[in-house]
Amino acid sequence: MISVVLLGAGNVAHHLYKAFVASENVKVTQWYNRHLKTIASYKNEVAITDNLAMLEKADIYIIAVSDDAISELSQQLPFENRFVVHTSGSVSAYDLDKKNRRGVFYPLQTFSKAAHIDFSKVPICLETLAKKDYLPLKQLATSITNVTKRVNSDQRAALHLAAVFVNNFTNQLYRVAHEITESQGAEFDLLKPLILETAMKVQELSPYKAQTGPAKRNDKKTIKKHLKLLEDNHHKDLYKLLTASIKHTHGR
Amino acid sequence: MISVVLLGAGNVAHHLYKAFVASENVKVTQWYNRHLKTIASYKNEVAITDNLAMLEKADIYIIAVSDDAISELSQQLPFENRFVVHTSGSVSAYDLDKKNRRGVFYPLQTFSKAAHIDFSKVPICLETLAKKDYLPLKQLATSITNVTKRVNSDQRAALHLAAVFVNNFTNQLYRVAHEITESQGAEFDLLKPLILETAMKVQELSPYKAQTGPAKRNDKKTIKKHLKLLEDNHHKDLYKLLTASIKHTHGR
Repeated sequence: MISVVLLGAGNVAHHLYKAFVASENVKVTQWYNRHLKTIASYKNEVAITDNLAMLEKADIYIIAVSDDAISELSQQLPFENRFVVHTSGSVSAYDLDKKNRRGVFYPLQTFSKAAHIDFSKVPICLETLAKKDYLPLKQLATSITNVTKRVNSDQRAALHLAAVFVNNFTNQLYRVAHEITESQGAEFDLLKPLILETAMKVQELSPYKAQTGPAKRNDKKTIKKHLKLLEDNHHKDLYKLLTASIKHTHGR
Repeated sequence: MISVVLLGAGNVAHHLYKAFVASENVKVTQWYNRHLKTIASYKNEVAITDNLAMLEKADIYIIAVSDDAISELSQQLPFENRFVVHTSGSVSAYDLDKKNRRGVFYPLQTFSKAAHIDFSKVPICLETLAKKDYLPLKQLATSITNVTKRVNSDQRAALHLAAVFVNNFTNQLYRVAHEITESQGAEFDLLKPLILETAMKVQELSPYKAQTGPAKRNDKKTIKKHLKLLEDNHHKDLYKLLTASIKHTHGR
């Protein structure tokens, strides 16, 4: 049984808490948050606190707070030589105070309050500064997911950056599509199966092989037609740059 | 029972053929293609031909060839006043020769040879120039899908254009993510659950509400970090433009 103290109460912390509770191999000893109110509803199932001086002993302390707050919170921990990890994709393990043993426990997924996540399929990227800390961290990860991966800081930074492309930027393309359809009184909903199939396709095929469409075919007639249809200059700029990017990739 | 003659042998034609064969309400009377070889393997289950003069009588003729070939093929049809539709998102119904009754039967999905598609979830966008042709076309569509929608030419053009954003452009973002991860020896595979979840999220939530990340938060520190990490200028340009686009949408 691995004992864990969870620090923070954002979306990642909430989803981790639920996944740990559902696991037979993990005990959440305590949940800390600066504002007790946010986690008050859990007080009957787990010890909660807003006082760092009251933190109990545990195998692993997980700091799941916003990137900017990680370093400072790690400095305020009132103990030494325990195992402390953060959950961020873009913060260095060295940003944790060196009085404790340090690591990273980065679940590569988008978490929202509402949406339920099947944690068993969420890849967790692991990093520890001391070799001996790796095994316990991996055991913690495999207790909630089937996909764990040791990554160094450069790899994690690349994954976090790539995640912005496949998540935030892709979602913005969905948004632009929403604007385009609405402007003609067409239903965005009709695009939903296509959105899903596009994401499904690259589960098996590489994005390179999955590509289709006017830019890849260098179908100038359709591209010209599309540019003429686009009324919004922001949309036009996106169309041009992404078309150029596809041509660049496919040697057109 | 609706009788159909299918013209063309690309991905859309193949997927339509299979969906029609699986339906109890449709009979594919004949399958035409310029090159007989492409459809020769079906000769024991359907009449095939490469000779337009031999086309049999049917309720609906479906032209599923490349955009540029639709108009000419429609002119070559050796009959008049029958019901002819094409399957393109971006070609006008008026591009079909006016000697026949005209319409559009546009399945809004990406089709590849390999991938199996559940046609019952593919939206089919319908348009007919004569009012009385709409009902039979709708009956044909509902025999293979649960989602049909009457759209005019402007709406169909908007959907086709929006489809480029959510399919081709999104897939290119996956490709860029692939390049970014590979450049650091990280695994693109780790992003696959995130890719799927991003697509799943907008099945319920609007893309506006689903947005998260550094651009939406206007998290300058992370944006700066990411721009510094990006080595490829194409990637940098995409990052900048999409970040600006998200800020624009969310009033940052």
